[in-house]
Amino acid sequence: MSNNLTTLSVEQERPSGCAIHPLLAQRRSFRAFSARPVEPETLRLVFEAARWAPSSMNEQPWSFILANRENEAMFNRLLGCLLEFNVRWAQHAPVLFLSVTRLTFTSTGESNRHAFHDAGQAMACLTFQANSCGLTVCQMAGFNIEKARETFSIPTDHEPVVIAAMGYLGDLSSLSEKLQKKALQAQQRKPTEEFVFESVWGKPAAALASQTSHRANF
Amino acid sequence: MSNNLTTLSVEQERPSGCAIHPLLAQRRSFRAFSARPVEPETLRLVFEAARWAPSSMNEQPWSFILANRENEAMFNRLLGCLLEFNVRWAQHAPVLFLSVTRLTFTSTGESNRHAFHDAGQAMACLTFQANSCGLTVCQMAGFNIEKARETFSIPTDHEPVVIAAMGYLGDLSSLSEKLQKKALQAQQRKPTEEFVFESVWGKPAAALASQTSHRANF
Repeated sequence: MSNNLTTLSVEQERPSGCAIHPLLAQRRSFRAFSARPVEPETLRLVFEAARWAPSSMNEQPWSFILANRENEAMFNRLLGCLLEFNVRWAQHAPVLFLSVTRLTFTSTGESNRHAFHDAGQAMACLTFQANSCGLTVCQMAGFNIEKARETFSIPTDHEPVVIAAMGYLGDLSSLSEKLQKKALQAQQRKPTEEFVFESVWGKPAAALASQTSHRANF
Repeated sequence: MSNNLTTLSVEQERPSGCAIHPLLAQRRSFRAFSARPVEPETLRLVFEAARWAPSSMNEQPWSFILANRENEAMFNRLLGCLLEFNVRWAQHAPVLFLSVTRLTFTSTGESNRHAFHDAGQAMACLTFQANSCGLTVCQMAGFNIEKARETFSIPTDHEPVVIAAMGYLGDLSSLSEKLQKKALQAQQRKPTEEFVFESVWGKPAAALASQTSHRANF
């Protein structure tokens, strides 16, 4: 982690009673990037991490289209797929990439129900690797899917998934007032009892129950 | 990591030229479980990690239905949703859980295109936390989706995603010959140049090109 990220993660400590692994605890999506380029060796590590994600039938449905800001024409093609509210901050990222998933199994042509799920797992893997290299990653759903498909000639059995901005953390004051405020807010999440059940939908899992006492200390 | 897992990960070292973070490098899906139960505090950590996953619009579409083998009736209800080839080994796991995702945004009711994607990210987060606690996690697509929906009264705007088996690593010799062989094989993945592109679909990203020299050393 860079000093910047460490400082921020201390200032904005997770309101969690449980001490999860620091790599998992420190992840968050920042939108302010330093101008520092991402070294090729670091980029290799990031996508190497995606490579080892688990997937249904080991299909590895994920692909990525990478654009470095050092290649302005290439960068602008991917930037041009984003919706305007994302262009405003993502234009300053040193790296953008589009994730794509294959909707069918290569061997049978049958539909892969977990195409998006497994692309999500690959994205999580690469994000944690990026974080461990001191980079921050912010995913965006707000882009023009059909424009991305046309721009990069993505085959019909594949689907553009997200565009992500990646780079070393920059000065938050470079962001709009609204995004600065968002970056400084504590992350909000549902309590575990609202999403971990047992026996039947909606019944909080008893094994996790003592977490409530932790939560009282927030 | 338990000694078992460490030993295995050394024996089956990743054929990768890049040194990704150990937490990411050591993950793999084992199907042999020790009888040792998973402590409540460890379970809390695992699902706490899922809680902090990123998601589109911070929707957090994931839910989980947890079944501990200590509660036999509950465990058997989830086990009964698996297809037979998975029941054979998963019946020995101390913990099973079903992941579920919400297909619509809570605030608007509109379709959430990233429902499966973000459930996948949550699954990756909890898997890495589980691994850091010495647990192994194996996800299964092979289950009866409608039976799971009925068994646990899952609402219509939600979709069962995967069933996962989780526990401390056990003796691989407890597995069928086929699964033992699979467990001892090196993991196979596509090389990065087959899934990281630039400019256009299928063109390997130049920034990652020097990885080829690493690969020659396999």
